[in-house]
Amino acid sequence: MKSRVAVVAEGMTKFGKREASWRDLAAEAGKATLEGAKNLSREDIDTLIVATADEEVYLSAYVAEILGLRPKHAFKLENLCDSGGSAISTAYAYISSGLAKAALVLGVEKMTHRDFAPQLYWDFTRGGITPPIVWGAMYARRHMAEFGTTEEQLAMISVKNHNFAASNPYAHFQKPIDIDQVMASKKLIPPIKLFDCSPLSDGAAGLILTSEEKAGEVTDTPVYVAGVGQSTTGATFGNVNREFTSWPATVLAAKDSYAMAEVSPKMIDVAEVHDAFTINEIIAYEDLGFAERGRGGQFVQEGRADVGGDVAVNTRGGLIGAGHPIGATGVAQAAQLVRQLQGEAGKNQVSGAELGLMHNLSAAASTCSVLIFKREN
Amino acid sequence: MKSRVAVVAEGMTKFGKREASWRDLAAEAGKATLEGAKNLSREDIDTLIVATADEEVYLSAYVAEILGLRPKHAFKLENLCDSGGSAISTAYAYISSGLAKAALVLGVEKMTHRDFAPQLYWDFTRGGITPPIVWGAMYARRHMAEFGTTEEQLAMISVKNHNFAASNPYAHFQKPIDIDQVMASKKLIPPIKLFDCSPLSDGAAGLILTSEEKAGEVTDTPVYVAGVGQSTTGATFGNVNREFTSWPATVLAAKDSYAMAEVSPKMIDVAEVHDAFTINEIIAYEDLGFAERGRGGQFVQEGRADVGGDVAVNTRGGLIGAGHPIGATGVAQAAQLVRQLQGEAGKNQVSGAELGLMHNLSAAASTCSVLIFKREN
Repeated sequence: MKSRVAVVAEGMTKFGKREASWRDLAAEAGKATLEGAKNLSREDIDTLIVATADEEVYLSAYVAEILGLRPKHAFKLENLCDSGGSAISTAYAYISSGLAKAALVLGVEKMTHRDFAPQLYWDFTRGGITPPIVWGAMYARRHMAEFGTTEEQLAMISVKNHNFAASNPYAHFQKPIDIDQVMASKKLIPPIKLFDCSPLSDGAAGLILTSEEKAGEVTDTPVYVAGVGQSTTGATFGNVNREFTSWPATVLAAKDSYAMAEVSPKMIDVAEVHDAFTINEIIAYEDLGFAERGRGGQFVQEGRADVGGDVAVNTRGGLIGAGHPIGATGVAQAAQLVRQLQGEAGKNQVSGAELGLMHNLSAAASTCSVLIFKREN
Repeated sequence: MKSRVAVVAEGMTKFGKREASWRDLAAEAGKATLEGAKNLSREDIDTLIVATADEEVYLSAYVAEILGLRPKHAFKLENLCDSGGSAISTAYAYISSGLAKAALVLGVEKMTHRDFAPQLYWDFTRGGITPPIVWGAMYARRHMAEFGTTEEQLAMISVKNHNFAASNPYAHFQKPIDIDQVMASKKLIPPIKLFDCSPLSDGAAGLILTSEEKAGEVTDTPVYVAGVGQSTTGATFGNVNREFTSWPATVLAAKDSYAMAEVSPKMIDVAEVHDAFTINEIIAYEDLGFAERGRGGQFVQEGRADVGGDVAVNTRGGLIGAGHPIGATGVAQAAQLVRQLQGEAGKNQVSGAELGLMHNLSAAASTCSVLIFKREN
């Protein structure tokens, strides 16, 4: 009988422009996460996975030492913006297989010392234009042309997520905004404006996952990993993007995750989706089965993605409001779902939430993780 | 019931100074490995783990695309010189947990464009002297002082491994040498001379691991992963090294791996150990339980680590003879054990080998993987 896998603790740093190195951020989030698991000692942590796109080598052993851990299994895992989702999936595998009993997943990234996010310079199918905003704009235009999605609907995503972020003390941005502000923000590549984008952020976030048996000793409110779905459809933009209104990797990952969790999209109470740009969240509604194809714009407009709607999406502020420190993003998404399922999400709490879904993308959505978390008590 | 995990194919490039990028090397080894699994299609590979210390991001998706794979799970894994051992352990976890059915583990490194291996500049406990040869020399001197190990015994490791490499077409070095040549080689840091060291090498190596059920469809000679033991005792040299004649991470990892495989050291027929320097192999004999403490020098001198001895060690040539492309090393070690257990190891074949052990280290042995492979037919 395979062990079920629970999340028993989470912790994080404030995201944003931080006067701190990746080492400082890792220590801060690691300490916060370990303190969140009151009945678990450092000796219990037998696995450490550091999710990051940082180029430094051997940093998992370094992180182990500064946190006072001596794990059996420890390594760095990188899958660009989906590093967090991949690391949680890997921790699940270690525990479910029986090799491990308790894993600390720590996502960390120092970004604001760079001018822009890492780019895939080798991908000539992008026409030599590698910044992610270019594909964001292509998808937004195509979705508008095909389904009548409006710039105002895109702006509503930004408004919703900034407003959620305003009550999250860990978020990069902490002020409510309105549609006029989004529409008037700096035009970058039409229809994408500054407030349609997630920012470069520094930050770190941690999760502790354990076997079901160990979880029972540590917490009264374990949250189980119910579904794990992942897909890599390729790496080059030209090879994985055809219709420009859907991401096959999301559809494939979601199918596997729903099947494993034995749930349907309509049953999800709360979700964290990868809103690198506002259009991403609209397409995610559709690819994940929350909204019908082409109706993502209406979905946000009708308030169906708000607390009290069909599914509350990005209640910590999403990447747009909370920030996007690459390796930390997926881990922070999962942390928010855990808080929601434990009833600890504060002002943005979804009453009685039982099922949470996270959706983490990489590189023009050529890779996707869809994880489903479940509260049972 | 958890699935057992089998290795069904292996493949590699020649190691050495190669006029090839890491991309070329990954493609060459990936193709060779996939061709080794005749009844497995590319669609069957649902997991891709790229083990490397290369700083490039999102390379697992790139490798998937150039090899024609569309895996569910794909990421880069880095744990310095133990990246290969960590990646195989992780593939085991994915398959054993049921998340995956067939994983390609690909270790790759381009090294010869650098002047030296990656160093841990942040480790001030090394006294500001970060090249690995410094700790190699400290261990060698201490072992000689405490146990009477001789420079000639160190040289015998190099002779044995170069001679094994001479019949391995994939090895970096391909000429037999004698003790006089080792003793006369360039003095670096006493007692370590040039021929006591593994070289900087380019290279890549792959393994395909599958569930037991899938293995039965693919090969008549599956090799099972019987034991997985890993340990990270720290990162800084000063914190993990006390006695200078043993590596606690090896002892801990070996204990777990033997227990999981339910075997004892004396039962191992063939082993690949991490001979970054000649002294490493002597200490490995002792830490792994092949030789008594302090008797590692005699162990090689008496021929007990040769084919026909107690346990044939480093029959592909080890890191000293075959080369040390960081991320590829552990994968190549496992590949050699698979060849031995399948009776395909050519001139250095150990007759009737049933149990193989691999020992992969990182960074002054602060991290160690000990994996045990078993043939059952």
